[in-house]
Amino acid sequence: MALFDFPLHELRTYHLDRPEPAGFDDFWSGTLASARRAALPPKLAEVGTPLKGVTTRDVTFTGYAGQPIRAWLNRPSTADGPLPVAVEFIGYGGGRGLPIDWLTWTSAGYAHLVMDTRGQGGGWRGGDTPDPDDHGAGPSTPGFLTRGVLAPETFYYRRLITDAARAVETATELPGVDASRLVVTGKSQGGALALAAAGLVPELVSAVVAGVPFLCDIQRAVTITDSFPYAEVVRFLRANPQLAQRTLDTLDHVDAVHFARRITAPSILSAALMDDVCPPSGVFAAYNAIDAQKEIEVYPWDDHAGGRSFFDTTALEFVEDRLS
Amino acid sequence: MALFDFPLHELRTYHLDRPEPAGFDDFWSGTLASARRAALPPKLAEVGTPLKGVTTRDVTFTGYAGQPIRAWLNRPSTADGPLPVAVEFIGYGGGRGLPIDWLTWTSAGYAHLVMDTRGQGGGWRGGDTPDPDDHGAGPSTPGFLTRGVLAPETFYYRRLITDAARAVETATELPGVDASRLVVTGKSQGGALALAAAGLVPELVSAVVAGVPFLCDIQRAVTITDSFPYAEVVRFLRANPQLAQRTLDTLDHVDAVHFARRITAPSILSAALMDDVCPPSGVFAAYNAIDAQKEIEVYPWDDHAGGRSFFDTTALEFVEDRLS
Amino acid sequence: MALFDFPLHELRTYHLDRPEPAGFDDFWSGTLASARRAALPPKLAEVGTPLKGVTTRDVTFTGYAGQPIRAWLNRPSTADGPLPVAVEFIGYGGGRGLPIDWLTWTSAGYAHLVMDTRGQGGGWRGGDTPDPDDHGAGPSTPGFLTRGVLAPETFYYRRLITDAARAVETATELPGVDASRLVVTGKSQGGALALAAAGLVPELVSAVVAGVPFLCDIQRAVTITDSFPYAEVVRFLRANPQLAQRTLDTLDHVDAVHFARRITAPSILSAALMDDVCPPSGVFAAYNAIDAQKEIEVYPWDDHAGGRSFFDTTALEFVEDRLS
Amino acid sequence: MALFDFPLHELRTYHLDRPEPAGFDDFWSGTLASARRAALPPKLAEVGTPLKGVTTRDVTFTGYAGQPIRAWLNRPSTADGPLPVAVEFIGYGGGRGLPIDWLTWTSAGYAHLVMDTRGQGGGWRGGDTPDPDDHGAGPSTPGFLTRGVLAPETFYYRRLITDAARAVETATELPGVDASRLVVTGKSQGGALALAAAGLVPELVSAVVAGVPFLCDIQRAVTITDSFPYAEVVRFLRANPQLAQRTLDTLDHVDAVHFARRITAPSILSAALMDDVCPPSGVFAAYNAIDAQKEIEVYPWDDHAGGRSFFDTTALEFVEDRLS
Amino acid sequence: MALFDFPLHELRTYHLDRPEPAGFDDFWSGTLASARRAALPPKLAEVGTPLKGVTTRDVTFTGYAGQPIRAWLNRPSTADGPLPVAVEFIGYGGGRGLPIDWLTWTSAGYAHLVMDTRGQGGGWRGGDTPDPDDHGAGPSTPGFLTRGVLAPETFYYRRLITDAARAVETATELPGVDASRLVVTGKSQGGALALAAAGLVPELVSAVVAGVPFLCDIQRAVTITDSFPYAEVVRFLRANPQLAQRTLDTLDHVDAVHFARRITAPSILSAALMDDVCPPSGVFAAYNAIDAQKEIEVYPWDDHAGGRSFFDTTALEFVEDRLS
Amino acid sequence: MALFDFPLHELRTYHLDRPEPAGFDDFWSGTLASARRAALPPKLAEVGTPLKGVTTRDVTFTGYAGQPIRAWLNRPSTADGPLPVAVEFIGYGGGRGLPIDWLTWTSAGYAHLVMDTRGQGGGWRGGDTPDPDDHGAGPSTPGFLTRGVLAPETFYYRRLITDAARAVETATELPGVDASRLVVTGKSQGGALALAAAGLVPELVSAVVAGVPFLCDIQRAVTITDSFPYAEVVRFLRANPQLAQRTLDTLDHVDAVHFARRITAPSILSAALMDDVCPPSGVFAAYNAIDAQKEIEVYPWDDHAGGRSFFDTTALEFVEDRLS
Repeated sequence: MALFDFPLHELRTYHLDRPEPAGFDDFWSGTLASARRAALPPKLAEVGTPLKGVTTRDVTFTGYAGQPIRAWLNRPSTADGPLPVAVEFIGYGGGRGLPIDWLTWTSAGYAHLVMDTRGQGGGWRGGDTPDPDDHGAGPSTPGFLTRGVLAPETFYYRRLITDAARAVETATELPGVDASRLVVTGKSQGGALALAAAGLVPELVSAVVAGVPFLCDIQRAVTITDSFPYAEVVRFLRANPQLAQRTLDTLDHVDAVHFARRITAPSILSAALMDDVCPPSGVFAAYNAIDAQKEIEVYPWDDHAGGRSFFDTTALEFVEDRLS
Repeated sequence: MALFDFPLHELRTYHLDRPEPAGFDDFWSGTLASARRAALPPKLAEVGTPLKGVTTRDVTFTGYAGQPIRAWLNRPSTADGPLPVAVEFIGYGGGRGLPIDWLTWTSAGYAHLVMDTRGQGGGWRGGDTPDPDDHGAGPSTPGFLTRGVLAPETFYYRRLITDAARAVETATELPGVDASRLVVTGKSQGGALALAAAGLVPELVSAVVAGVPFLCDIQRAVTITDSFPYAEVVRFLRANPQLAQRTLDTLDHVDAVHFARRITAPSILSAALMDDVCPPSGVFAAYNAIDAQKEIEVYPWDDHAGGRSFFDTTALEFVEDRLS
Repeated sequence: MALFDFPLHELRTYHLDRPEPAGFDDFWSGTLASARRAALPPKLAEVGTPLKGVTTRDVTFTGYAGQPIRAWLNRPSTADGPLPVAVEFIGYGGGRGLPIDWLTWTSAGYAHLVMDTRGQGGGWRGGDTPDPDDHGAGPSTPGFLTRGVLAPETFYYRRLITDAARAVETATELPGVDASRLVVTGKSQGGALALAAAGLVPELVSAVVAGVPFLCDIQRAVTITDSFPYAEVVRFLRANPQLAQRTLDTLDHVDAVHFARRITAPSILSAALMDDVCPPSGVFAAYNAIDAQKEIEVYPWDDHAGGRSFFDTTALEFVEDRLS
Repeated sequence: MALFDFPLHELRTYHLDRPEPAGFDDFWSGTLASARRAALPPKLAEVGTPLKGVTTRDVTFTGYAGQPIRAWLNRPSTADGPLPVAVEFIGYGGGRGLPIDWLTWTSAGYAHLVMDTRGQGGGWRGGDTPDPDDHGAGPSTPGFLTRGVLAPETFYYRRLITDAARAVETATELPGVDASRLVVTGKSQGGALALAAAGLVPELVSAVVAGVPFLCDIQRAVTITDSFPYAEVVRFLRANPQLAQRTLDTLDHVDAVHFARRITAPSILSAALMDDVCPPSGVFAAYNAIDAQKEIEVYPWDDHAGGRSFFDTTALEFVEDRLS
Repeated sequence: MALFDFPLHELRTYHLDRPEPAGFDDFWSGTLASARRAALPPKLAEVGTPLKGVTTRDVTFTGYAGQPIRAWLNRPSTADGPLPVAVEFIGYGGGRGLPIDWLTWTSAGYAHLVMDTRGQGGGWRGGDTPDPDDHGAGPSTPGFLTRGVLAPETFYYRRLITDAARAVETATELPGVDASRLVVTGKSQGGALALAAAGLVPELVSAVVAGVPFLCDIQRAVTITDSFPYAEVVRFLRANPQLAQRTLDTLDHVDAVHFARRITAPSILSAALMDDVCPPSGVFAAYNAIDAQKEIEVYPWDDHAGGRSFFDTTALEFVEDRLS
Repeated sequence: MALFDFPLHELRTYHLDRPEPAGFDDFWSGTLASARRAALPPKLAEVGTPLKGVTTRDVTFTGYAGQPIRAWLNRPSTADGPLPVAVEFIGYGGGRGLPIDWLTWTSAGYAHLVMDTRGQGGGWRGGDTPDPDDHGAGPSTPGFLTRGVLAPETFYYRRLITDAARAVETATELPGVDASRLVVTGKSQGGALALAAAGLVPELVSAVVAGVPFLCDIQRAVTITDSFPYAEVVRFLRANPQLAQRTLDTLDHVDAVHFARRITAPSILSAALMDDVCPPSGVFAAYNAIDAQKEIEVYPWDDHAGGRSFFDTTALEFVEDRLS
């Protein structure tokens, strides 16, 4: 994959020229309010693992519409007292997997809440959270990007983003956590959820780490890349061309650029210039929309791997500086 | 794709050596009974098309758990009096599309009920029927083959097969139809549904046409082909290896070979010897399980196209001979 | 396949800046005159099918140089009196197949003449018409786009386009046809033939339906797409670089844009913005060259499928409006 | 490509169990007799090249039905007196290209007649010989393996094999050639032609070099490989399943194994065990059918490259030993 | 990828029938002796990371011929006193990357020595260790599997395996390590190195963890898979067929099955039945050769991912049970 | 592959705007001086081949740092007296193969020295020359483009280019050679070496033939193509992003455009407009940098094949005109 999006100097100043959809604020504040009304206290259960240095709890909290969402809570087993907490969201298709899959933030001294992704976890890392869909929202391309896409109210990502905001709220209530030092983090879909959560509950978030975030400037992305998951939208609109406008309107309700505008916490993002899965123009559109202290790591040679543990290391340092 | 399954002379005598799952009969009779209890009369609405020779109605009938299922009912516009009726099921991923997509059986003088496929229709031909899933059945590989697969009760294909049986029951109640001449027909997933419906409501079915049917000897298929949709199961079990036995057990509850054993109507199937999507061993396992008048068309050079309109022509002739 | 040709607003005004080749008119009028001199009356033979609603005849008419060309003539079996007639041309590689393959226009109340494609029909739908080539026109890339391409006189498409014009002439002479209501129609290669026939015998054509037509602005197309069939030209010129000018000159003699300029009948075309087989710039070049009542359906998300039955439905309505 | 055909020890004893088609001898002797009746003396024209060490003539001789066939005749420019002569046939798709493409045999001290391949030369190396086909033999898959395949009389390879035998006859008449030392040689399609020519005019051939020959045990090959050109047959039979028996019967008339049985000259062949283009079972079937002094070079790791210049070197040594 | 190697019940009893190469013992004991003679004490340098829970040292020890080899040594930062130690080897192509890439064993309470792979680390995770090759061992296929393959003495894997044995020896000398509890571990190439080290210095190794190990029954593997890295051997032998015997002989000197026979420590391996990179027959050949307490985890649905963190978890538990 | 680089009219005037790296002259003159100091007289050994018209010698000369480099020296066997000599360099991955692989220049009356490529020859044509690397230059992507790339001093291509210059010097000393008529020639990597040698020892070179040369404007090439070998750099920088600047700096030391500026001999190059392996912008950057009599052959339809024997023929004529 060669460079295929705008050249870097144009990316640096690329802005989404579309305002947020009408009613965007009401849509999300209403959705969150409903979720909170249906909320129950999180349940925690001890989980045995062969990891002596980590204490793991299986967390069930309530997300969208009060539905139960699973998570892992890992802590350094030797830590006393309240710890800063990282709330992590997962890339497209994977679930929370096993506790052993999540060791970076505990090794850095954080409590680590890894939110499972409803309905996902059947593709490359297992999951444990159903996606109850009482709407029966209608036909969709296999995958999640068009599930219920005919209206913002029924769209899959409405539910998932609400889960993410609720995960942040939950994290502040967990025992042994210093809620004044809360990081949201993730890559790809996880990066989009980090941006969304940071925009929805900005008062709770102290730092944002979003690697090669998905769901940014979706309307452009679906016309410039052939790669999945964005290609799900293209396939759906091929099968149902009469639904294009409704579909694009719904997608705009979850475009992370609109959430980015609401972010107040220090933020670090990564973009990869050969990334055809989450094209860098979307990442820069989100980055350029953030009105807070911010940095962007650009990986000129990377595809969607997007800096990998180089970015992890840089991001940990960035967060450490901001939280202390 | 070269020949890759058993050679033809072994296919001729290939039988599934597995009995049906314990409780198979009760499972399906209970499911159908529930659907019937929740059933409402079908609703029909006129649809305008540029096809002067065809009268189209948009049908909504009740399928699994009384949920609404859409269908097209096409009839030759010049026909008076009751007509034989063909109930058609659709291949994986597609929905009922447009009335103009379905002209073969009306051109042959049949009423033609084309059942939409719940949740599908986002991939290559549009659909209009949601898949309400109050269970929130858990993570799945994108696609439908693992949706709710952890128990027969929650599995997607329980709902879809019930829809198919209900479509047959509905067809017998439609105006202008001669219910004593009812054909079930389909290709690939549609062929599997035709076999399943013919096994579930054998007393209503006069003839069966199943081209390269899917869902036959699933346990073998998932080990010999790399192609989708069977590959969805493999991906799911990679992500969730601990769920293999439960998954295979559930899949066995919808294996069309078990339905084939219950078929009493004259049946014609097609198998393609280079078909890696629906391997011919499965087709022969189903065919060899049928204890009724039967024929199988073997296409030695075909992949999953499976004879296309050659088979359509042969099948129409087969049905004509049996119904008259 | 993402968007890859000009953006839509540029397509809207894209014109071929090349005039037609010198002698273009004489070349085609001479060719047609020869074909007419060698013409014999069409022969029709009844064909039995399982389609009660359709009467099928196997037609043999004379095309280029009086050579015999096969076709199917389908009619609604219940129709009396003269019917409007649709003359259909087929996409690249396929032949006329079976009568059951062609039910749209009869279902809409038309007589339907489906012209077989000489020499084709060995790739994906069978054919019955040889391509006698007494010239022995010289080496060619496998496929048809370079067969005899070293001179307009020997080029395969000279023969095929002449067949198409002769098919229109034949259609006017068939029994039970209302020659004042004649549609030419086709997709891809079939769309190119529809445009060509409509430009060659404009006085006989009442409406034109050309879906994602092939052979439009060929000189641009061969430099922007890697996909077959245009790639046949590239491969041929790789093997024979010294023949480039002659090859491009010959191809220009069959460029459908030059025929489009001669069309007088109401015309509807489709273009797909992700179509790398027949790039949309060519389609718009043809559309913009038509000096008659016209519409273009643009499918922003489609590849070469180009709207499929959505376009069929729209086109039938367009034609119905124009012919009545 | 891993090993995919029989293991080597089975290949060593693999025989075609099919006899030659009825009338095989008459078919070919009749065809050759016609070609000889129509034959004209070869025409030779000097060709200038930048190769000082090679004298090149452009040869036109008469092949099938007296049709003109082009060839290059290269000779070492310093040689006096009659030279042994190698008649070379070309792999599928390529033409005779340029004189500079053919330097091996002249460098080894031979006169070298390189026969152009009628109709080919549009794909990867240019050609100059048309394939006049007055039959207009009917639809075919793009490519040459199904051109006219519905009867042995009209099949493309009837014409091409006749050209090959005529090239050998022509070579014996060329000036400066020692006809008592004549080699036929080629790879892939060229190897098949070498075997065929050596079987048709065995009295003129002193040695045979056939690298990974094509057209050997065709009936098996088309069922075990997905690769072109054999896949042309599969595609043709998919489109035209009713023609399978006729097609296979015709192909059997050009199966090189039947020609191999008639070979009397010392022969060297190569087989490659990972060759999915010309599977080794076919090569061994041909080799095991030869009743003459013979050797086979087996390249266990090669795909269709089949030993390349290793085999060239070995073959030149084999021939040198036999001719001197 | 479907199942493609032996069925599981045959794998269970599959043994390599080849003895080890003559002189195998002397070859390796001599090589190790030389390395030890050239050995220097390891050098350790503190490395700063953002991981508060982990102390990282950059280790340089001496491997083959006393050449410097880099490694990371991670320890839980809160641990006092000697810890059990895991020596990890890395999969093909990757280097030691960053300290943050290696957190599993420290989280489980181990000191963790991650050996860099000489010359590798240019493909997917960076490395820091050159592969000084004073031999200039000759042409090779890009990659490492044929580097110096013409003699065991010059072969790349002689050097790398010696590094691995030396890493084990080094680990026993590190401060804060309980050398009586030493695990060797790795996946793919890392698994092969774990087996090799455990066979070369069995007295130092307390447990072996080898996931889907590479380099097992190499002579079979190169004939049954098309996938890299084994395909490097095939390509090399295509280019140099005369070197096949020497190449295979050299490869046999590093076949992990021969090392497996020498293992005395409790061992756990994983095999994946759809793994075409390291076919399961090789894994079972190694497993069945081990004469010690042992377990094998079979992942029926996995490709080369081979159980991933499921296996990690199981392996940690296996090791914990054996070391305590 | 469609056109993908600049359009032809922009290529015509495309110049590299980067000056050569600081110290470029000293770097290369120092390297060459060292090689000359270590030089030994070439060794020649007779080699038997079945080619009567060619005399072959196996040459060993000293290249970089006095290391032994193999070559073939072919001569027309009938030639007396001194001949003009062509020094040929080989494309990426291949070695010198067999004497029979190199017949063009001897057939044209030249002595022909074919330099083996150190370390290569394991991929598609065998080689015989090791690449002794006493530096152990560090991890690299498989392939040669990043071997030792962290400094110009340790870079693989420093050694290879020095070999090339030394091959030219060697050629002038060979018996039977007219050193005043010396051509350097090659394609792809061979073309780059021809340009480099002609720039390094311009006083020895009478003509330059460089087909689709590699290593031209490397910094642009690695951002516009996904194809190997340039993709090796991208993969390396993905794994090691911190090394980007050093890597690009090193690569700039072997960029053939900088050598092209030093060329004084008449030169002919070829560029192919659909060449994604060696993009035409690089070729034109080199061509436009040459300040000598020059021609460029443009193949508009070619991929990396780049004119093949059409260019060979043209180039031989160009050279003949210049040398006589």
